[in-house]
Amino acid sequence: MAKTREIRVTVWNENIHEKTHAEVQKCYPKGIHGAIAEALAGQSDIQAHTATQDQPEHGLTQKVLDATDVLTWWGHMGHGDVKDEIVDRVQRRVLEGMGIICLHSAHFSKIFRRLMGTACQLKWREAAEREVLWVTRPGHEILQGIDDHFIIPHEEMYGEHFDIPEPDETILISSFTGGEVFRSGCTWRRGAGKVFYFRPGHETFPTYYQSEVKTILLNAVRWAAPVGAMKIDCPHKPEMDWFAKK
Amino acid sequence: MAKTREIRVTVWNENIHEKTHAEVQKCYPKGIHGAIAEALAGQSDIQAHTATQDQPEHGLTQKVLDATDVLTWWGHMGHGDVKDEIVDRVQRRVLEGMGIICLHSAHFSKIFRRLMGTACQLKWREAAEREVLWVTRPGHEILQGIDDHFIIPHEEMYGEHFDIPEPDETILISSFTGGEVFRSGCTWRRGAGKVFYFRPGHETFPTYYQSEVKTILLNAVRWAAPVGAMKIDCPHKPEMDWFAKK
Amino acid sequence: MAKTREIRVTVWNENIHEKTHAEVQKCYPKGIHGAIAEALAGQSDIQAHTATQDQPEHGLTQKVLDATDVLTWWGHMGHGDVKDEIVDRVQRRVLEGMGIICLHSAHFSKIFRRLMGTACQLKWREAAEREVLWVTRPGHEILQGIDDHFIIPHEEMYGEHFDIPEPDETILISSFTGGEVFRSGCTWRRGAGKVFYFRPGHETFPTYYQSEVKTILLNAVRWAAPVGAMKIDCPHKPEMDWFAKK
Amino acid sequence: MAKTREIRVTVWNENIHEKTHAEVQKCYPKGIHGAIAEALAGQSDIQAHTATQDQPEHGLTQKVLDATDVLTWWGHMGHGDVKDEIVDRVQRRVLEGMGIICLHSAHFSKIFRRLMGTACQLKWREAAEREVLWVTRPGHEILQGIDDHFIIPHEEMYGEHFDIPEPDETILISSFTGGEVFRSGCTWRRGAGKVFYFRPGHETFPTYYQSEVKTILLNAVRWAAPVGAMKIDCPHKPEMDWFAKK
Repeated sequence: MAKTREIRVTVWNENIHEKTHAEVQKCYPKGIHGAIAEALAGQSDIQAHTATQDQPEHGLTQKVLDATDVLTWWGHMGHGDVKDEIVDRVQRRVLEGMGIICLHSAHFSKIFRRLMGTACQLKWREAAEREVLWVTRPGHEILQGIDDHFIIPHEEMYGEHFDIPEPDETILISSFTGGEVFRSGCTWRRGAGKVFYFRPGHETFPTYYQSEVKTILLNAVRWAAPVGAMKIDCPHKPEMDWFAKK
Repeated sequence: MAKTREIRVTVWNENIHEKTHAEVQKCYPKGIHGAIAEALAGQSDIQAHTATQDQPEHGLTQKVLDATDVLTWWGHMGHGDVKDEIVDRVQRRVLEGMGIICLHSAHFSKIFRRLMGTACQLKWREAAEREVLWVTRPGHEILQGIDDHFIIPHEEMYGEHFDIPEPDETILISSFTGGEVFRSGCTWRRGAGKVFYFRPGHETFPTYYQSEVKTILLNAVRWAAPVGAMKIDCPHKPEMDWFAKK
Repeated sequence: MAKTREIRVTVWNENIHEKTHAEVQKCYPKGIHGAIAEALAGQSDIQAHTATQDQPEHGLTQKVLDATDVLTWWGHMGHGDVKDEIVDRVQRRVLEGMGIICLHSAHFSKIFRRLMGTACQLKWREAAEREVLWVTRPGHEILQGIDDHFIIPHEEMYGEHFDIPEPDETILISSFTGGEVFRSGCTWRRGAGKVFYFRPGHETFPTYYQSEVKTILLNAVRWAAPVGAMKIDCPHKPEMDWFAKK
Repeated sequence: MAKTREIRVTVWNENIHEKTHAEVQKCYPKGIHGAIAEALAGQSDIQAHTATQDQPEHGLTQKVLDATDVLTWWGHMGHGDVKDEIVDRVQRRVLEGMGIICLHSAHFSKIFRRLMGTACQLKWREAAEREVLWVTRPGHEILQGIDDHFIIPHEEMYGEHFDIPEPDETILISSFTGGEVFRSGCTWRRGAGKVFYFRPGHETFPTYYQSEVKTILLNAVRWAAPVGAMKIDCPHKPEMDWFAKK
């Protein structure tokens, strides 16, 4: 099998709410990144570390990215402050093969919008609603261990229209107490990299401690781990009889 | 412009509930086919006629199909009695270019399952629930004149997982009172033919009289009308230097 | 029918080769934009005008874009000089519903890469090769009047891997004398806008005078014309019982 | 990781050419199935056995299929003699989660056409042409160890239009000496099962002994191995307040 090396995961978080909102601090005392890293801990095939926006180069130096197989991204208040050159760097690594998992409000992150090419807008409401996530692709790698649906007791509502390109695969669709629906689990490929958008994870709810959510994060990391690469290049091929030499 | 000729629509219905259930008779005194044909009437670019399962060859002779640009299909109780040779004939016409619009319980029709290759199963409940249909592809031809959502006051529930191939386009997703969700508007191409699945239309509710539903039926007929054809053929091409003769 | 108004097309060209290369001047004395505009002329349902990179705001003021249904884009040497704020503006109009047709070397334009989210790289060779374009989606609106293939006698080679997201539809695939292949006709939706990439059109060959190419340009303009719109917005929906009021 | 058990592969072949054509006998003395089984042999994570059309129930009893994770299919002359009830059984197992790899002339097998819903027709010519297979999705699991292209010195030509639904992923496109092109590597999901069509493998050429072809077969088996299942069912869900009980 190909994936013999450990999957190296960088769990990225803007880490702003945690420093400014007491409610979030209480819910995520180690930060949202801390909770996600814990969800990935204790697995023999995964090695996770964290990075945050306030670090030099947002914790995403070329060296860090070169040693990252899968990047998870949580951001919200700080989207506008993420430097464009870092976004360029992350996009390039995704095209080269790094997997990326964009979480919740990362729908509006620079990197997600860059990879989609669309506005990535949606409807929203903070009202602690019941979210039911329905499986629309049973047997998918990311849904191992998930039944036909699961429920998050309290979450922020996100509603369609979610402005994304037609997903390669729509694997989860949510409904909310208010009657709205949302494509909550979507996959795409960009270059040699795999992209997964996963909706849940509002900062004031203990979503990332819920077992189904942790299962999906683990599955998604394994699904997104690269098995090959793409070289960023636009090669001139002068020889028209190249095959004659084979 | 290409579509100068009238679009010839055959509105097909199994027409069984209407003859056996008083409730359905009352709701659709002219049959579900009658209601759909009326929704398409009075348009200068559309010419609709009806056909039913109890007619010879189910009303779908080769002559009728050859003169059909778009076929709409409503069936439920009689799926198993539709003759396989008629299904073959309809499939062939779709591949050649005829559009087909499969409605509600037609998810389990032989022709829809034939075109999909999947089980087409779903969850269901008859409880007169509120269905909210959310637009997931604004600007789509089939959604002209539809706002960001519309509501059908009472409908049968259909819930995911709906076992279909990944749609080319998912344009509508429903939620129901009970919290289930469903991909209610989906498009595919099969050969030169366009396929639209549209969920609403339980026989005991006046769904096909609702203005948004009629608008979508009209739009879908225009969207599905063929502008080209495919020949059913597997040609032997003996010449390897055919381009040299051009 | 919806498209009763004329389709307003803006034919955009960087117009650099035409001013600096005698060979191109000779092939396209009125500019590539002039040739494309002529291919679209004389149609009762189309009204085309041209715009070039050297005009103020590259000829793409907000007023011009607001009055554009479909934009065609040809660029090559000047990609890097297109201002980012104009690219932002064009992208926004596409998401709102404007169609866009990206031609040949526009694979590397800022606007195409923005809409794709990928590197859009490919292999290339200038050797006046025979290009055979094979139809892979018979019956498609953009291929009306095109047989199962057509040949361009001399073209620049573009070869896979072409780094694009999986197209919504791959409608044409080319082979070249040298044995390379290329997805030459691809469609996507972004927001409410339709995107068509069409490979042919190297500046030193009379490609845009060839009848099949002109037919495809005409068909593509009609296919890409918007029938609806998307509002750029991320609305807060405070009411959870909105449907109760309906 | 999920795939700890061996992947159980059934290599199916109609095994007719091998018994009737001396040329094929010479090329594949152990049958095409024998060559494919050998390509999969010696892997600690794969356990392959063969089955042929002339066996009782074509070697595909319910017991065999229940113990099959991935089925590979080669057929040509005998397509019409495959019993419909066996095709039903195989289709059902694919929807439940079994992977299937359809090879070369299996484009016209009952099972492939059943899963696609289309005519699956193409152009063809037996002229021992050079086939170049170009990678169109670098980094894909099925293409591990494959460079940007590879060449099969002599193969039968298959040309577009190949009548298939738009693939979920097009990962290989071929060109032939004669100038035709073909989507040679395509993936789809049907139910919980993964489908891979792989073009090469004409019975008179030693294609299945070529290293790149064997690599792709191995990769495809690993990619297609199920990690979950779908139940064939259409459940009635009587309770509208089911979530209230959670």
